[in-house]
Amino acid sequence: MLTDQSKIKFQNSGKVVTTEQIFNGHVLDLYVNKMDIDGQIVERELVHRHPGVGVLAFTPDEKIVFVKQYRPAVDEYLMEMPAGLIDLVEGEFEEPLITAKRELEEETAYQAANWEKIGEFYVSPGALDEKLHLYVATDLVRVDNPLPQDEDEQIELIELEKAEVLNLLKTNQIKDAKTVIALQYWLLNEE
Amino acid sequence: MLTDQSKIKFQNSGKVVTTEQIFNGHVLDLYVNKMDIDGQIVERELVHRHPGVGVLAFTPDEKIVFVKQYRPAVDEYLMEMPAGLIDLVEGEFEEPLITAKRELEEETAYQAANWEKIGEFYVSPGALDEKLHLYVATDLVRVDNPLPQDEDEQIELIELEKAEVLNLLKTNQIKDAKTVIALQYWLLNEE
Repeated sequence: MLTDQSKIKFQNSGKVVTTEQIFNGHVLDLYVNKMDIDGQIVERELVHRHPGVGVLAFTPDEKIVFVKQYRPAVDEYLMEMPAGLIDLVEGEFEEPLITAKRELEEETAYQAANWEKIGEFYVSPGALDEKLHLYVATDLVRVDNPLPQDEDEQIELIELEKAEVLNLLKTNQIKDAKTVIALQYWLLNEE
Repeated sequence: MLTDQSKIKFQNSGKVVTTEQIFNGHVLDLYVNKMDIDGQIVERELVHRHPGVGVLAFTPDEKIVFVKQYRPAVDEYLMEMPAGLIDLVEGEFEEPLITAKRELEEETAYQAANWEKIGEFYVSPGALDEKLHLYVATDLVRVDNPLPQDEDEQIELIELEKAEVLNLLKTNQIKDAKTVIALQYWLLNEE
């Protein structure tokens, strides 16, 4: 069950006239709200999901770390940056950087000494409240006894040189929005 | 009611063991599927939504066209590129470029003579099948009698110089993922 700030926001925003919870799931909730938007009453189907993090990680030999996994929603295997949803701890979302460090270690068995925040982005603000916090992680060190992967995740780890990544990006073989934002940010900001 | 290819994919993928439709809405459907992923049975909450388009449009005096609107899901007014969901026509999704041309005209009263495709991206592939087709549109001409805006949309049109856009991007004031992808793409590829 998801009980947190965002849900309360859905229900209590000054613009909400009525709210009906349709579904209360493990990773998402669904609401149908009647909203008063600039004087007009409109019905909106809204999905609530925890915020998440994504980590663009560079190995000491300048490779970028990707995870490849099957994504049921799109029925494809996708190349993505390490990522995950932010946990609730006693009713509050944990710090995004704490999630980022944990997800990097769980998914890749790396820890990073250096973290830079790229920014915060809404992935589909027309219907979904999911916000992603994106980071660049450098100075990676492999961990001997890393945090275990989630039991229901089957992830393949792939480390690629810059030229290979550029080619994947240019040919639209990287289709995950968060991963594209982080890679383009890196290309625009590298020294 | 949404009846289309993606829904069929959700239900018939070789990996689906059982599927239950929880909700059948105006802009999204919700399923709970049991999936066989690499020999492991896992339960997944999946949201089906129509694919969409986004248009990064440049006026003849080199300004970029944004729409600012209230987004109930995130309870914020966001600066975004013109965008919209792809219609179903006789059970098939229309060509994304047709949607892009219509949405640009409806939301901005511009038509464009020159269209370049940036790519196709999944905005949240962990739970949502939504795919976005992104374009750059140039050689804009203002239309005297444009297609009308959707009745339940309240949109403010804003045209900004490159320097202003760069500042918004750098300070994370543009939070919509699709808009960030398109702006970064333009910065990486401009002549």
